[in-house]
Amino acid sequence: MIDLKYTDDLIPVVTVDARTREVLMVAYADREALDLTRRTGFAHYFSRSRKRIWKKGEESGHLQRVVRILVDCDEDTLIYEVEQTGVACHTGHRSCFYRTLEGKEISSRVVDPADIYAKGKKKD
Amino acid sequence: MIDLKYTDDLIPVVTVDARTREVLMVAYADREALDLTRRTGFAHYFSRSRKRIWKKGEESGHLQRVVRILVDCDEDTLIYEVEQTGVACHTGHRSCFYRTLEGKEISSRVVDPADIYAKGKKKD
Repeated sequence: MIDLKYTDDLIPVVTVDARTREVLMVAYADREALDLTRRTGFAHYFSRSRKRIWKKGEESGHLQRVVRILVDCDEDTLIYEVEQTGVACHTGHRSCFYRTLEGKEISSRVVDPADIYAKGKKKD
Repeated sequence: MIDLKYTDDLIPVVTVDARTREVLMVAYADREALDLTRRTGFAHYFSRSRKRIWKKGEESGHLQRVVRILVDCDEDTLIYEVEQTGVACHTGHRSCFYRTLEGKEISSRVVDPADIYAKGKKKD
């Protein structure tokens, strides 16, 4: 396995749809999140705001099965190629990148966020 | 324009091929690099190691014409959708993500790096 370079114990992860190549989200992993991802086959990340590991979809059911993990030339960034169940974004859009810099929506909401998360539960 | 959230004056940028959607590289921009990108139509970044703005391809000629810029839901990450001249990676691969985590090459070198950079010049 390639020896990765972490910054403050984190490495950025670009998560892409394994079939369409669409970028779904960008998050961070620590060593444990990456290890859990490899061992379970489901995407895990480290939440900087909540300061804990999270399994994508743990609340929403919108899991990401990881098909392959890629590393960049500098060995400081990862790609998770995933099969996405449901949507990646807590807003109900398939991808978190649903707007241009000018604020124009380029894709529609697929599901109502109210239907994704039970009341009082954290987004993921 | 969406009000972006910078961390230490930087925002991560995922650069993707506008046509194939392939992730080519991940880098960082500061406000000036983003402004230059928007004004010139060519991808600019901020190099954390060299502590300066760089225009992608300034040495190699492997420019990136930016077709569209996307923002994620948290407004702290960008996508540059680009038309890539030549290759994105200084190793001569089209994408910087040419290996799996286990070190297996998934795509071949397209050009010889020795042909990209003049002797003594910095990679970009």
